[in-house]
Amino acid sequence: MKKPIHPDGPELSTLSAGMWRLHEWDLSTDDLIRFIEECVEAGVTTFDHADIYGNYGNEALFGNALRERPDLRDKIEIVTKCGICLPVPGKPEYAIQHYNTGEEHIRMSVENSLRNLNTERIDLLLIHRPDPLMDASEVANTFLKLINEQKVRYVGVSNFTPSQFNLLQSAMDECLVTNQVECSVLHTIALFDGTFDQAQRYNASPMIWSPFAGGRLFTGSGDAPHRVRQVLFKLSEKYSASIDQLALAWLMALPCSPFPVLGTGKIERIRSAADALSLNMEKQDWFRILEASRGHPVA
Amino acid sequence: MKKPIHPDGPELSTLSAGMWRLHEWDLSTDDLIRFIEECVEAGVTTFDHADIYGNYGNEALFGNALRERPDLRDKIEIVTKCGICLPVPGKPEYAIQHYNTGEEHIRMSVENSLRNLNTERIDLLLIHRPDPLMDASEVANTFLKLINEQKVRYVGVSNFTPSQFNLLQSAMDECLVTNQVECSVLHTIALFDGTFDQAQRYNASPMIWSPFAGGRLFTGSGDAPHRVRQVLFKLSEKYSASIDQLALAWLMALPCSPFPVLGTGKIERIRSAADALSLNMEKQDWFRILEASRGHPVA
Amino acid sequence: MKKPIHPDGPELSTLSAGMWRLHEWDLSTDDLIRFIEECVEAGVTTFDHADIYGNYGNEALFGNALRERPDLRDKIEIVTKCGICLPVPGKPEYAIQHYNTGEEHIRMSVENSLRNLNTERIDLLLIHRPDPLMDASEVANTFLKLINEQKVRYVGVSNFTPSQFNLLQSAMDECLVTNQVECSVLHTIALFDGTFDQAQRYNASPMIWSPFAGGRLFTGSGDAPHRVRQVLFKLSEKYSASIDQLALAWLMALPCSPFPVLGTGKIERIRSAADALSLNMEKQDWFRILEASRGHPVA
Repeated sequence: MKKPIHPDGPELSTLSAGMWRLHEWDLSTDDLIRFIEECVEAGVTTFDHADIYGNYGNEALFGNALRERPDLRDKIEIVTKCGICLPVPGKPEYAIQHYNTGEEHIRMSVENSLRNLNTERIDLLLIHRPDPLMDASEVANTFLKLINEQKVRYVGVSNFTPSQFNLLQSAMDECLVTNQVECSVLHTIALFDGTFDQAQRYNASPMIWSPFAGGRLFTGSGDAPHRVRQVLFKLSEKYSASIDQLALAWLMALPCSPFPVLGTGKIERIRSAADALSLNMEKQDWFRILEASRGHPVA
Repeated sequence: MKKPIHPDGPELSTLSAGMWRLHEWDLSTDDLIRFIEECVEAGVTTFDHADIYGNYGNEALFGNALRERPDLRDKIEIVTKCGICLPVPGKPEYAIQHYNTGEEHIRMSVENSLRNLNTERIDLLLIHRPDPLMDASEVANTFLKLINEQKVRYVGVSNFTPSQFNLLQSAMDECLVTNQVECSVLHTIALFDGTFDQAQRYNASPMIWSPFAGGRLFTGSGDAPHRVRQVLFKLSEKYSASIDQLALAWLMALPCSPFPVLGTGKIERIRSAADALSLNMEKQDWFRILEASRGHPVA
Repeated sequence: MKKPIHPDGPELSTLSAGMWRLHEWDLSTDDLIRFIEECVEAGVTTFDHADIYGNYGNEALFGNALRERPDLRDKIEIVTKCGICLPVPGKPEYAIQHYNTGEEHIRMSVENSLRNLNTERIDLLLIHRPDPLMDASEVANTFLKLINEQKVRYVGVSNFTPSQFNLLQSAMDECLVTNQVECSVLHTIALFDGTFDQAQRYNASPMIWSPFAGGRLFTGSGDAPHRVRQVLFKLSEKYSASIDQLALAWLMALPCSPFPVLGTGKIERIRSAADALSLNMEKQDWFRILEASRGHPVA
């Protein structure tokens, strides 16, 4: 289930386990070790972190598991992010939510991530949000140094517009291997604003956050969630698949070859998602879902 | 009146006769032959088709004329399109309007077009609409094979954004010779969203559909049509031209060198349009019309 | 305080003195000479003109000063613009506000500017507004001729989208050294629409007009001006700076290295602005101002 996210990038599992809500799952270190092992067994070997997840706490929770079980490290890939500064009790120096993509901050964040995760390398480091103060040369140089120091293997971005991606890429020799963006049957902007055109053009497969629209797919009110659920329910019989499996299959049909990030701590939902990868959705059903999402047929 | 639509593209007549509504014109094959001959005499030698026009019927109506009069084929250029799947009685396999830009579909569509049009080559084949499921390499390879098989001479797209155009072009050695888009005095988006910047930059002259805003120019209600008609009526005396001639001259003033597609089956309107090509509109009058269309002067 | 606006461009002072409202300042030629001298002493050596400023009159007012004091010419840099045609009493041939970027018009405008400014060369010539009728090759050729004739040293544009900039640049060997655009704490579009990404990528520092939002910063009603003023007032103590100095320092923090154009005729405000250039704003304060301007924190 692993494949390169970019011709010059790392092999990642098609699905990643997102650690965004790890702190809410109330797992002991043993529980987390079991979860990681079960993910790996299900073919989900990539774990998606950010320095700020769990108010800067989730990397350390994960690192505790790796400390107990260092053998797990080589079975998994670790993605993490930096660049957002979050005002939380442990960070009195941050008075306001802001970005920092300066060398000093990136380097500090990477060192923290390595220490917290209890690892010697980050497989993929992403700039978390486009920073209007980003100096592309500075970020590029910082990336290069971190790669040369073998602290980071590959680099990418998240939530960048095509123009922001091009700016940073133009300052680098290494390739940005992904732009992790939001996409789902209920959030289709990246299909039409050039983001996925760019991903396809540069063979930089996008990692996808909120592939189920943050739960709106299942429980959201409003016309679009209602319409989409109706179509998915109808198709669930045809494909013998749950609506979340269909929502994933819909994403996987995209020609930019997406890598969805799951947000769940429930292994059965991870397994269910992994099963969905073998599901081939017919083109007409794909467009039926798009039509339900947008409220009108294609032109 | 013929000129290359792209430095590496075919010579087309500046105006094309659009076959979108051919089935509504109620022409016998002899009538159609006469219409084609009269178009050619008027310098309108390019005929704009799509597989789906007339619910997949109009190419065959045109092909009937070419069967009767094979000598006409070398006097004209045939543009056709593929990629839209229309749910009509004759296509029970299509349950919903959708796109298909896979190799199998494009090839099938081209074979149908060749058979229906009763010709051995399509002069210019366009992807009709941007397909979010388009695999650029697959389309590029399919285009190349069709060109090598001499079934299609040149290729292009229609209704693509600049980003979508760039994606497909980046996968090809051959040039996309046009992006056929909507534009008129009442629909000026392509002037400002990068579409015509790209056309000018790549010397890929755009074919223009709905150059009279689908009739809104003549009968549309609303402020913009009203204002534009007022200005055009005032100018009609100055230029000794009808308002449709002025609307065409307005388009022809664009530096991307547009190739408008007419939608009429009335030869006198074709002739009137052809006469408009020699009309040079003064810059100030051009901006007067733009101002009427947008409701405000330029900044 | 001078620095190159582009690696292959002219050295300009970071701040320019904008001559937009020169005609409203009611200065005698001697007054203006004194103003120019005082600007130069304050390090503001670049003067930003346009053919149309003061209803085509301000270049001549400035030129009167240079006629009296030809020694000043080599101490300053002159930027001017062309391409807008303004219907004013002295231009009966212009019935409507419109653009003209044809060779004849640009050349005529440059000759007028040289004569009015009483100078032999324009240091930087800008196309004032993107013209939907711009023929990029024609503008490029005209620019090249004017450079070869030593009437113009460098060229650029103003108010162009990234796509329009790319189009014109693609037709030229010389570099467009700047895109002069609007930006301020109350007008942040250029930070997010690709304009400043492009500026940073091509090292073409943007000149910035309305750096104080045309006065809205000081007196504007509405939520955003109110919120921004509140934040700036709070910060004014911390930085021992006025709110206009802080607004400038906010701009100067941008990584595209902006060159703001001041609009004032008051030398004390010029000096105050020049002093602001040494002010380094902390990242968090920068984001505090952005948040106040947009009404929401960054994501």
